Amino acid sequence: MKSTFTNNIIFCLAILSSPILSIKAQDLSQILSQGKWIDLSYDFSAQTLYWPNNPTGFKLDTVAEGVTSLGYYYSSYAFTAPEHGGTHLDAPVHFAAYGLSADKIPLEKLTGDAVVIDVSAKALSDRDYLISVNDITDWEAKNGAIKENTIVLFKTGYGQFYPDAEKYFGTAERGAQAIPKLHFPGIDSTTAEWLVRHKIKAVGLDTPSIDYGQSKNFKTHQILLGASIPAFENIANLNLLPVKGAYIVALPMKIKNGSGGPLRIIAWVKNS
Amino acid sequence: MKSTFTNNIIFCLAILSSPILSIKAQDLSQILSQGKWIDLSYDFSAQTLYWPNNPTGFKLDTVAEGVTSLGYYYSSYAFTAPEHGGTHLDAPVHFAAYGLSADKIPLEKLTGDAVVIDVSAKALSDRDYLISVNDITDWEAKNGAIKENTIVLFKTGYGQFYPDAEKYFGTAERGAQAIPKLHFPGIDSTTAEWLVRHKIKAVGLDTPSIDYGQSKNFKTHQILLGASIPAFENIANLNLLPVKGAYIVALPMKIKNGSGGPLRIIAWVKNS
Repeated sequence: MKSTFTNNIIFCLAILSSPILSIKAQDLSQILSQGKWIDLSYDFSAQTLYWPNNPTGFKLDTVAEGVTSLGYYYSSYAFTAPEHGGTHLDAPVHFAAYGLSADKIPLEKLTGDAVVIDVSAKALSDRDYLISVNDITDWEAKNGAIKENTIVLFKTGYGQFYPDAEKYFGTAERGAQAIPKLHFPGIDSTTAEWLVRHKIKAVGLDTPSIDYGQSKNFKTHQILLGASIPAFENIANLNLLPVKGAYIVALPMKIKNGSGGPLRIIAWVKNS
Repeated sequence: MKSTFTNNIIFCLAILSSPILSIKAQDLSQILSQGKWIDLSYDFSAQTLYWPNNPTGFKLDTVAEGVTSLGYYYSSYAFTAPEHGGTHLDAPVHFAAYGLSADKIPLEKLTGDAVVIDVSAKALSDRDYLISVNDITDWEAKNGAIKENTIVLFKTGYGQFYPDAEKYFGTAERGAQAIPKLHFPGIDSTTAEWLVRHKIKAVGLDTPSIDYGQSKNFKTHQILLGASIPAFENIANLNLLPVKGAYIVALPMKIKNGSGGPLRIIAWVKNS
């Protein structure tokens, strides 16, 4: 009897300590009710920030707005936008001739666990800061190794300046002549190589570009997109995420053959 | 001893049968690995379907495409689109003067459990079919009552015709004169009232509009959007969803003051 009892307890403990029980489909929303979805996306408006050489930004035109002849209210708009501005996706084909376009990136590459690496202390004191491999390994020393297929997000602190172009880009000037005046932090190319070697799923940050403002050859774009790792730029609200444990759903507008485009990115975070 | 043993078993069973254990944040992706995300969105291209009176549809313009003077490949595009076409959101303000715009709809209204009500047998044999309250109550008789805060999706079967305008809309003609020739199923206004009374979270279907093609006053839009219930139109792949148990994440492009816009909608479905 003792032996059976002990076996039963061991059996129960084994089941209870297994990380996850098989769930019923309808249980998912109950699990998700233990946390909340947080929006990491800026809205699109005339204030949306685009690279200085874009001749136009986001524009919303009124198709209809007001009470119709049949007595009901009706509003409808049309819009124009470059792909790369505001909270947006860089698809691999943005910098890789045979890379995936925005519509072809599998949902598995756009959803998953995220880590948030805070480099804001260094980046806010140096507008040209390049995120280093040390920034990652320091994070790992405190929080554990970053697993394969993780979405790696860098918090530079520049999100607090959006959409103030002067503070966010380093210049509020427009046109091609403003490009040499861009000063904001980005990911060093050796760090990009590290991320590829460690098989991360996607990368994102709270600046206009994964390359820093002073980049000429966009080496970090070439390396990450060349390795089929999508990038999320101008992410909002990174300060609301924990260093680990957030689950990301990043859904770009499904533009056929697009090199990127508007991104609605949200994170599920467990209640603390 | 017997009593202790029994108590332990009862304790274990009680825990094991409780619907959900409190999870650790990092467990969510493990739970989600018991199923998969399915894309319910069409891509945006020159083939994307828009209401016949839209003077233009989706247009992608090349900003850059090819090898740069610095030797790396680079592609970038800009696009133009009306808000209401392809897989898209109708925000409450589309038909309600003081309704929420696309950017203001809380994520809680865009995520949650879905039911799929299949009306394709009737709708495919009658292009002007109006989805009735009976269609819902028949579904409930088989599958249980629809709870408050459910996302209700109707499968008319017309998704199989997309993007063939003749078969999907009932006419391939363009311009205002084509509007009276629209013939596709939609939601009857009494059914819309039922959905409001039962406090559903959002509604969606695989046709161009929640009102049927022959509607003149868009009563179903007025009722549902007037009650702050967002609508998802031109949903793809509804045939891949179970009648219940799917979890929806519907993320519209975050257009400030938008009456709707491009929607990327996905569903998590447990492996069977």
